[in-house]
Amino acid sequence: MKRTDLAMEARELWQERGSGALPPGARETRRQEAGGAVECLEITDRAAAEALGKPEGKYVTIFPEAFLRREEGAFEAAAALLGSLLRSLLGLSAGDSVLVAGLGNEAITPDSLGPRTLRHVLATRHLVASLPETFGAFRRVSVLETGVLGNTGMESAEIILAVAERLKPDAVIAVDALAARRLGRICRTVQLTDTGIIPGSGVGNARRELSRKTLGVPVVGMGVPTVVDAATLAADLTELSGQGETRPEDFGEYGAGMMVTPREIDGQMSMMARLLGYGIDLALHDLGVDDVTALIG
Amino acid sequence: MKRTDLAMEARELWQERGSGALPPGARETRRQEAGGAVECLEITDRAAAEALGKPEGKYVTIFPEAFLRREEGAFEAAAALLGSLLRSLLGLSAGDSVLVAGLGNEAITPDSLGPRTLRHVLATRHLVASLPETFGAFRRVSVLETGVLGNTGMESAEIILAVAERLKPDAVIAVDALAARRLGRICRTVQLTDTGIIPGSGVGNARRELSRKTLGVPVVGMGVPTVVDAATLAADLTELSGQGETRPEDFGEYGAGMMVTPREIDGQMSMMARLLGYGIDLALHDLGVDDVTALIG
Amino acid sequence: MKRTDLAMEARELWQERGSGALPPGARETRRQEAGGAVECLEITDRAAAEALGKPEGKYVTIFPEAFLRREEGAFEAAAALLGSLLRSLLGLSAGDSVLVAGLGNEAITPDSLGPRTLRHVLATRHLVASLPETFGAFRRVSVLETGVLGNTGMESAEIILAVAERLKPDAVIAVDALAARRLGRICRTVQLTDTGIIPGSGVGNARRELSRKTLGVPVVGMGVPTVVDAATLAADLTELSGQGETRPEDFGEYGAGMMVTPREIDGQMSMMARLLGYGIDLALHDLGVDDVTALIG
Amino acid sequence: MKRTDLAMEARELWQERGSGALPPGARETRRQEAGGAVECLEITDRAAAEALGKPEGKYVTIFPEAFLRREEGAFEAAAALLGSLLRSLLGLSAGDSVLVAGLGNEAITPDSLGPRTLRHVLATRHLVASLPETFGAFRRVSVLETGVLGNTGMESAEIILAVAERLKPDAVIAVDALAARRLGRICRTVQLTDTGIIPGSGVGNARRELSRKTLGVPVVGMGVPTVVDAATLAADLTELSGQGETRPEDFGEYGAGMMVTPREIDGQMSMMARLLGYGIDLALHDLGVDDVTALIG
Repeated sequence: MKRTDLAMEARELWQERGSGALPPGARETRRQEAGGAVECLEITDRAAAEALGKPEGKYVTIFPEAFLRREEGAFEAAAALLGSLLRSLLGLSAGDSVLVAGLGNEAITPDSLGPRTLRHVLATRHLVASLPETFGAFRRVSVLETGVLGNTGMESAEIILAVAERLKPDAVIAVDALAARRLGRICRTVQLTDTGIIPGSGVGNARRELSRKTLGVPVVGMGVPTVVDAATLAADLTELSGQGETRPEDFGEYGAGMMVTPREIDGQMSMMARLLGYGIDLALHDLGVDDVTALIG
Repeated sequence: MKRTDLAMEARELWQERGSGALPPGARETRRQEAGGAVECLEITDRAAAEALGKPEGKYVTIFPEAFLRREEGAFEAAAALLGSLLRSLLGLSAGDSVLVAGLGNEAITPDSLGPRTLRHVLATRHLVASLPETFGAFRRVSVLETGVLGNTGMESAEIILAVAERLKPDAVIAVDALAARRLGRICRTVQLTDTGIIPGSGVGNARRELSRKTLGVPVVGMGVPTVVDAATLAADLTELSGQGETRPEDFGEYGAGMMVTPREIDGQMSMMARLLGYGIDLALHDLGVDDVTALIG
Repeated sequence: MKRTDLAMEARELWQERGSGALPPGARETRRQEAGGAVECLEITDRAAAEALGKPEGKYVTIFPEAFLRREEGAFEAAAALLGSLLRSLLGLSAGDSVLVAGLGNEAITPDSLGPRTLRHVLATRHLVASLPETFGAFRRVSVLETGVLGNTGMESAEIILAVAERLKPDAVIAVDALAARRLGRICRTVQLTDTGIIPGSGVGNARRELSRKTLGVPVVGMGVPTVVDAATLAADLTELSGQGETRPEDFGEYGAGMMVTPREIDGQMSMMARLLGYGIDLALHDLGVDDVTALIG
Repeated sequence: MKRTDLAMEARELWQERGSGALPPGARETRRQEAGGAVECLEITDRAAAEALGKPEGKYVTIFPEAFLRREEGAFEAAAALLGSLLRSLLGLSAGDSVLVAGLGNEAITPDSLGPRTLRHVLATRHLVASLPETFGAFRRVSVLETGVLGNTGMESAEIILAVAERLKPDAVIAVDALAARRLGRICRTVQLTDTGIIPGSGVGNARRELSRKTLGVPVVGMGVPTVVDAATLAADLTELSGQGETRPEDFGEYGAGMMVTPREIDGQMSMMARLLGYGIDLALHDLGVDDVTALIG
């Protein structure tokens, strides 16, 4: 099967196979905002979930075009848009506490979205307690870098569950790199979803689920496509080059465990990680971009 | 008061104030091993604990002199000695699982002992489960880097407690940088103790305790002195220079929040972190130094 | 002798020893700007240079108080002030090329000012050549991280000289961490000087000089005090505590090779490195802070 | 054209197009050594160079199979083999000085071979001068990390040329990641060549040449295949899957600027970088693996 973590590609694959219409239990809207275009796919029943291969819930995709062209003021607009969409998915109240988890491997560039995003996220939980006069109006934010199984011996989900059980946050945000089907989507969009996250699902090694079901509070998954599975790429390339239809399975073991990523991935990851980090800060506190910069340094 | 995390300095301070003898409830032995000299201080009652300012328990100090002079074969001997002392403090059985936690701030060189040590520790918990034919004889080891309060919003001890509650390990090893009183001790010794660890105690900000009392299983604290408190240094310097006796308090606020550390600290930390990491691996598995190198790469 | 790289402390030491007046060949001015107070010490003859222990030239010290208090808009004001003072010292023309060198050891937190600053400096030399329509109005900037002798086998000055001989830049900026005499000055000021830089002078191992004399073009040294020499600290502490006057030499070998630095050094270095990097970008190009952020990402 | 930096693949492509025989001016030998198989391709005239698309000279490929299987003692054997082959290509005399350059981008995992290798290379130039009693028998080694054009504004070759002009080394070793045609070769072989290196050639952006011609002394290029060009992969995949023959050009712009690399690339890079670094140390000094470990720490 063609590997993708993107709801918009799952929808696209379904449409390519069929009539072009969405299943009845799925609804899509698209609108243009100051910070970029926003596509929202809502899956409201089990039949649609099975048809599209994605759990029931909301999937919001942001296309921050002006920011990607490095236009003036575009970072502020994209971060504000992201913050507002994230805040709305989280459904927070004043005084809530939030656990922000970054998944992935800092040492592998396209898998480093989680750890890199965390560098831009304000940890405030200890400050709200110790400096209430300054930070009393902030939400209490804890920041957790999960590391990766090979280095820790623990699934990312296990660590997040352990910490969440102890801290009992009112919401969880989990940031991870995603796999796309098309190269042209890499580092071009941000996906938010209230269905949570299945760590490692994007790179072929699905682990435990992090969701409202397993954690008991809203869990928003936040990601950016950073790699394409090599066999998925090959299948798509073959079709595109007019060689007829192939499936990733046709390539057998060849390409297994391989990922395709742009040569410019490092700079693109820096841009997207900063956007996600600021988006989280703007969602969780009443701050502007300049305030965040002053606090993070 | 003069700040130190070293049991041998606590004993020394007590002896400087008094007759030179140890209190009745404390006992000290010293012996020479292939990997270095070993001093063991045992505190067996509350009176001795109060006299020395250290909780009841065992404190083992290793002086890996040949290793520090980079003599041939000395790394292997020092790592083997450390492994054997650590194994004996942990009192492990076959099949036990162990959580190894590294505390401290990787971005501050003398505070990076914990994270740096972890780079040399084999995480095996997932391998024992998934590759029993190869790793069946290994103990299950999980590796946790706690990060620091300013970046995470969570005390190191909180994260370790959370993970330990979920994983229920049979023992915990906590690695952290220590504060010494004398510059000449920096990066010259390793201290092991079965009293656990009070994270951050070495740098003036004591947090919650990690010990058999709080975790219910053996907790060994493992550390290396890497800094001297600036006011402690000043007090000692003044005495040494024949200016009469002073106390750190005499310097008031001046020097508060300051640490003294060698200019060569980076290389010294690398050496000690590698020694500690290998010592942990040798304690937890039936491996030699070369096996660990082949597995870690 | 008390170790300091700060012109303002050299002046202060001279004044403590004497009448309080400056030598005739030295002149000092102080003014308040939007971005902070600015002190300018000019040494115009050899007698004053010898009296103060600093080469003839200009020394500009900036006190970015509002920025250090993280006030709103203060980063922009401090970076603009730094950029304008630096531009004036460099005396650049349109189309000039500049080599920006960062000295020091990234692995030792208080010695990492140079490498950290470079992360915020735009390298444009290749872009001016390859994308003249977009970057034609930029000065050609090359960015060189020298590494440290222990890792490279080469003095920082040797590498800079080698690259400067080949690139023939119109000016050189050399960024390095400085040693102060007083703890209270650490990470509180920025010093600019048209006398260039003597790499490593701040930490006791003077190497070759980088100056207009050795390079043939303007060389501006740029630094922030990040450490105090342990023996200098001890001498100052002793006086301050009313123990009478001492000299660093009184402490003999004790404390040699040791440095004193704040526990919060990592965060302070991040702030100052960002300020210096942006200051350099604003000095070299007609850009605002937001433009630099958009370009660096 | 199918992209490869590997002489063995250039030979293979030539053989696939023709009769299977090598051109007259090329000669190949293969032998088994303790550290692995060694293939040596020698190109001795211009016609063979043009036929194979590689400059005249020697290309040595090492297959360190036992090391890759992490067999006991295999690291030592592979490092010794690499050291001996490298020493023979360099043709060094006692007392010679050598510049070791690492190219590539540390922030992009498969491009980080150069910088990572340097971590294991002993810089001795300053020690031979300052501690002749200990290091008098060592060759003088300088270590240069070139950085990448986007961060420095300077081609890697420019920086190496600048430093070589000043230091006048007797030989240069340049380490860089290579592009392969087949996924199965990634991180499985080491290539040494006395034809030097064309920085960036492996990833589509050929820069200036580093060779005996441009530097006047022996220049050995040393590399490991770490990526496959996405279009090359697609062309090979299509053939392999029986879809007929395609060329990378058939995929047009699609896949341009994309690279394919294993998900396990980080660990594989660590292994190979360590092997290369130790190989260099063993080639340049009369040391064993344990000596190097003791000196590097």
